[in-house]
Order: sequence, then C-alpha cells, then structure tokens
Amino acid sequence: MTGRLTIVGLGPGDPRWLTPAATEALASATDLVGYAAYIARAPEAPGQRRHGSDNRVELDRARFALDLAAKGRRVAVVSGGDPGVFAMAAAVFEAVEGGDPAWRDLDIRVEPGITAMLAAAARVGAPLGGDFCAMSLSDNLKPWEVVEARLRAALQADFVVALYNPISQARPWQLGAALSIVAEARRPDTPIILARAVGRPDERIAILPLSEVEPSRADMSTLVIVGASTTRWIERREGEAPFVYTPRSYRACP
Amino acid sequence: MTGRLTIVGLGPGDPRWLTPAATEALASATDLVGYAAYIARAPEAPGQRRHGSDNRVELDRARFALDLAAKGRRVAVVSGGDPGVFAMAAAVFEAVEGGDPAWRDLDIRVEPGITAMLAAAARVGAPLGGDFCAMSLSDNLKPWEVVEARLRAALQADFVVALYNPISQARPWQLGAALSIVAEARRPDTPIILARAVGRPDERIAILPLSEVEPSRADMSTLVIVGASTTRWIERREGEAPFVYTPRSYRACP
Repeated sequence: MTGRLTIVGLGPGDPRWLTPAATEALASATDLVGYAAYIARAPEAPGQRRHGSDNRVELDRARFALDLAAKGRRVAVVSGGDPGVFAMAAAVFEAVEGGDPAWRDLDIRVEPGITAMLAAAARVGAPLGGDFCAMSLSDNLKPWEVVEARLRAALQADFVVALYNPISQARPWQLGAALSIVAEARRPDTPIILARAVGRPDERIAILPLSEVEPSRADMSTLVIVGASTTRWIERREGEAPFVYTPRSYRACP
Repeated sequence: MTGRLTIVGLGPGDPRWLTPAATEALASATDLVGYAAYIARAPEAPGQRRHGSDNRVELDRARFALDLAAKGRRVAVVSGGDPGVFAMAAAVFEAVEGGDPAWRDLDIRVEPGITAMLAAAARVGAPLGGDFCAMSLSDNLKPWEVVEARLRAALQADFVVALYNPISQARPWQLGAALSIVAEARRPDTPIILARAVGRPDERIAILPLSEVEPSRADMSTLVIVGASTTRWIERREGEAPFVYTPRSYRACP
C-alpha cells in the first residue's frame, strides 16, 4: 500500500508554535481529517480535500482516515496540542488494533506538537520544573474512582499535577470535586494556574492561591496546573503577574 | 530596564521540530547563553554573541544571563527540549528569586518546545495516550527515597511513567533500581520504550517487554517510557516495529 497517515499536532493555537515538520505534513497531505476548527488552522493547500467533523466521534474519524490511507491517499489527521496527549493519536491506534488487519501495515506516523501544559507553564514561569503528572479529569472514558485515586496518589507523592479536560457543560462537578481533594493535600496558598486558550486571541491566564480558585473560572478550553508543596511564587512590582516555578531541588525548599 | 531574557526550547534535536517562535527568539537575541552543544544548534545570526558553557553549573549560567539582560541586552538562554521540563527554566527562576531584586522586573519569557517524551512517544505510537507522569531519576537534587516513593505511587495508581535522566556515568545504578520497582508493579510483558537521541542522527529506539530490559541499553541521552497495565502492543508484519499505545478508555482493556 502506498497510502500514508500522519497524526499531526497543531500545538495550542498560535501558528508560531506549529513546527516546520507539522507544517510540511499538512502541506503534503491529499486529505485532512479532523475536528473542523482544527482543520481551519491548517494553511490552505491547493487540491487538498478537507473532511471536517465535530469534536466527538474520534474513533469514527480515525477509521475514516485509515480507510482513506488504505485507498492510497496521503492523510493528515489534525489534532490540537500534541496528538499523543489526550488527543487523536490513541484513537487512531485503537482503530488500527480493532480494525482491518491491513491497516497495521500502513505507514502511520505521529508529528508531535506543543501540548497545552507546556504552553501554559511557559506563560507563568516554570511550574513544571519538578516531577509532574498529567491527567484528564473526564470520566467519559474511565470511572471517576480511577480519576480520584490517581489524583490522590499524585498529590500524596508531591507531584505537580496538570489537569486536562477539567470541566464542560456535560461534566460540571468534576473540577470542584478535584479541587476539594487537592485542598486535603496542599496548603491554601498553593499556586493554581488556570490557563485558558493559550496562544489564541481569547487567551486568559489566572494564577490564584488554592483557597481562591472557583471552578466556574475554568471551561473546556482551560488547562489547570496544581503546584506541588515546593512550588513558589515570585512577587513582582505592582501590576505585574507573579512568576510561578517549582525548584529542581527537592530538599532546598519548605 | 530595556533588557529581555527568553528561555528558548530547541526541542529534541531535529531542526524541523524547532518552532517558528523559538527561531525568532534566537534570531532576535543579541546574546545566546547555554550549553555549547545547544548553542551550536541555533542558526547563525550576524553580530550575535555566543556564550557557551558545559552542561553543569546551570545556576551560574542563569545568573550570568540575568546580569546581561539587566545591562540591557536581549538574551536567549538556550535549552534542549522544553525549557520547563527538567531543563533551564526552573534554574533561571531560582536565580531570579535568590538574586538581585531588580531581576524580578526584567521581561522574562519562556518559549516552549517539544520535550523528549512527546517525541519519543510519537516515534512508537501513542504510549502516553492515558494519564501519565514525568519524573527525573537523578538523585543529584532530590533524595533517592523521594524518587522511589514517587515512582511507587505512580505505578500503583497505574500511570504511564516517563523517566528523564535515567542513567549517567556518575549515576550508574538508579535505572536498574527503578526497573526493579517497576517489576514489582507491572507484568513482565509491559512495553518499555528506550528512546535515545530522538530526532538526532544517532537516534535509536527500542521497544522491549519489561522482562528483557537491561539498564545498560540506556545512557544519558535516553528517555524511558514505562507502560501502564493497559498499554498495548500492536504487532505488525515481520521486520516492522510494533506500535505501542495506551487506550484512552480505562475499563475497556485488561
């Protein structure tokens, strides 16, 4: 088979964060498959077919893309952020495993991208400067008990924790429940970063002590970072947001 | 003060993974500061001063860069991968917090990059497709007991675990000790990814079952990914490396 499928990470939204390798993968594709809002971010390429869909049905979209590649097309599946982090890559490989055995022999590649937590961290300092975990608060695909157990384990071991998919209209209570668990394990002045739509025109970043965070400040475009016990604020002159960072060294800090 | 300091992520090594924003930050700097091997990766810019150093003394390098910025220079501190993940950004903010109070008012920015675990994951499939942790196995800056406790917590909560700085000549036993801890918590056929120098000419990727991993296969340029209980192999035709991925869904898998 001569078809090819590349799952391409667009990064968080700013085109200046789109890697040259991703740009090239988009430009050389005969077909783009993905959430319509992501496809709209890809530069126009003459003769390219664009198959936009809504933001659900990831597995259907993956099968559709694999089928196109099996027919000999050069397909780019577009994904926000990094495709391997709570995005399209796992859905494609799920479809490969459960689908037509011939799909296993396709040329399938992943083009990495800047995932939201890296962009969010960069905006405020270096909050991921120590060991950290990344987890999705969505209980669509795993039971809430698993989410809760993982969050408790990460907090107890004093990881910084990045929370993807913290809240949505269909999942309104999970972030509040998670913050209650955080409050059992962290001081009230622990820095919490709410980074919404980083790199897009409607970007909004808030850095708040844990005691002042309201779940209603987050939405489905928000990435939340919960500091470790060692994560520190650096205050700056009036009107400037503080820097937040986690020291590399674990003993040197309170 | 008119000086500026940007901590720039170069990504794992392939220039096609250097973002346009990082390229621009490098090109507009009057001074580059960092490990000489990273500075060598930055495209030549006329009139730019390059201050290379060895790969230790991060805090000295950070202070030197801050001092240049305080004198009005536009400084880029170059960092491999993403500056916020086991790289230069935390060192710079440590230096800011402990240094000249005027440094707090400098224009300090971080330009994110593709961190090694994202590039490594992309090469083999989607092993970070579920919740995951990233931790450094170095006990230079934190006691080994902390490393061990964090690793046990992450394994017990069934996170995928990415291990940075797994081994070096000065730290020869830590990866072996970590793999013994992994073996207490994971099946012998758990996929382990050893990704060395991803994106560089000497790249070498191995995917092995836990029972067959020898620490001697890793070196200081290697990133190790330890699968969760749900992480899966997809076998392909003879001669092709398998795909490895972690399903998004937690209950659907063994």
